[in-house]
Amino acid sequence: MYVFLNHRFIAQEKAMLHISDLAIQRGYGVFDFFRLREGVLLYAEDHLQRLIQSAKFMHLECPYTANDMQQILRQLVQTNGIPNAGIRIILTGGYSPDAYEPTTPNFLIVQSPLQIDDNTEPKKVNIITHEFVRDLPEAKTINYSMGIWLLKKIKEQHAHDVLYHQNGIVSEFPRSNIFIVTENDEIITPATNALKGITRKRVLELSCKGYDVKEGTVTLHDIAQAKEVFLTSSTKRIQAVVEIDGKRIGDGQTGDTTRQLLAHLICKEKEYAMATFA
Amino acid sequence: MYVFLNHRFIAQEKAMLHISDLAIQRGYGVFDFFRLREGVLLYAEDHLQRLIQSAKFMHLECPYTANDMQQILRQLVQTNGIPNAGIRIILTGGYSPDAYEPTTPNFLIVQSPLQIDDNTEPKKVNIITHEFVRDLPEAKTINYSMGIWLLKKIKEQHAHDVLYHQNGIVSEFPRSNIFIVTENDEIITPATNALKGITRKRVLELSCKGYDVKEGTVTLHDIAQAKEVFLTSSTKRIQAVVEIDGKRIGDGQTGDTTRQLLAHLICKEKEYAMATFA
Repeated sequence: MYVFLNHRFIAQEKAMLHISDLAIQRGYGVFDFFRLREGVLLYAEDHLQRLIQSAKFMHLECPYTANDMQQILRQLVQTNGIPNAGIRIILTGGYSPDAYEPTTPNFLIVQSPLQIDDNTEPKKVNIITHEFVRDLPEAKTINYSMGIWLLKKIKEQHAHDVLYHQNGIVSEFPRSNIFIVTENDEIITPATNALKGITRKRVLELSCKGYDVKEGTVTLHDIAQAKEVFLTSSTKRIQAVVEIDGKRIGDGQTGDTTRQLLAHLICKEKEYAMATFA
Repeated sequence: MYVFLNHRFIAQEKAMLHISDLAIQRGYGVFDFFRLREGVLLYAEDHLQRLIQSAKFMHLECPYTANDMQQILRQLVQTNGIPNAGIRIILTGGYSPDAYEPTTPNFLIVQSPLQIDDNTEPKKVNIITHEFVRDLPEAKTINYSMGIWLLKKIKEQHAHDVLYHQNGIVSEFPRSNIFIVTENDEIITPATNALKGITRKRVLELSCKGYDVKEGTVTLHDIAQAKEVFLTSSTKRIQAVVEIDGKRIGDGQTGDTTRQLLAHLICKEKEYAMATFA
């Protein structure tokens, strides 16, 4: 397997960064992650634009345009020959002489096998909550200290994931967005303090299919009252959240809206793939 | 210059980590930093204990005891032959197959030349403020996203550093602790949400010299009313904070207490060095 590291393709096992890199010294960097589906870079424009925006927000200079990256990505996936995969692009703070000031970033792309089936029945998950807001929610930084630190608590409580909130106002999961479906069939996702997820964006676009989907404020109380709750991410698409902190949500079963939206998402993926090949 | 990386001493320029390390992937790791003063590892027990506690808190297994590390450190500094230096020990989340779950940590020690003179006149600094609390203030993690992100703002405002507070309750600087000296000559440092700095600890110990120094609550209002404000860190020892958000603190000059405490700290360092050599 090859990776792309600072302007060249090299064998993955040889892809190293010097210890003076600001990711190692100070956890400073940004990244993005998306799927290769049957050889198609799924929603790559969205992800590359977000990476460029994350870099700009964190005062890091991305060495490539979105077009450059598209070309590098095509070459990489062709060389590796693995049609279903996850693609991770990382931009670090670079080799810093004083271990604090960012310099020219190190840029890397890693491809890892990842097979997601097109099963339209959403997985059911139970979640716990934790009071926290991500440091710089405007950017997709590599800082997952809190999310990883909470893995122990998630396991201890036999949960699948942890939802961040502050004073009861909900923001996001460490690696996913949240939506609720209200009694009035409004579909709402937090407008602030949450990463602008690309799957989240796809769900918001489903308003054109007649769904009343929008950004707004979501509280823990709203979740307790919700008919349905689901999470979204590039690798999970849509999963039904059926339990929070040990309390059942709605009737504890996957709701109709959640199920319909997942079907729409899978459909969209297929359409995107066809359009890209066309 | 040699560094210590995963059980062996290697040339610094060859010290690399594979890109699957969780510091690069997710900014996950802990570290500590202290000074080598004329060949003496200054307050090494305190720093090594804190590193071990940081690792434990972050669910990372430190591969060495404090005694092991003392031995490795002595060998490293002897090999490098640079008597005045900074010593950085980093413990990362390790090479993670799924780029999220911590594994066996990578452990590294880096020595860099660092000369601190014994000038007893404190440097005067002006600071700005930012509303923020460090994610996991109990541990010295490598996550400095916010501190580094704020470098631009610090420069733009011609300041030296930025002080974190939440709703006006002060915690710490990205890399230093804060103390105020009140009108009644109480010397107070924030008790919570701040790293338990080793220089901070040395200042707290000065209560045995008759100073009324203690942990407590410090607000931005307290700072505005304070007679003196100073910051502490291993590399800065004590610096006089004379301006905050463009407003003068006290009479805008270094206070007597700040100056006395710095003299005590330098004295303590010399005593420690002598005791260690004895």
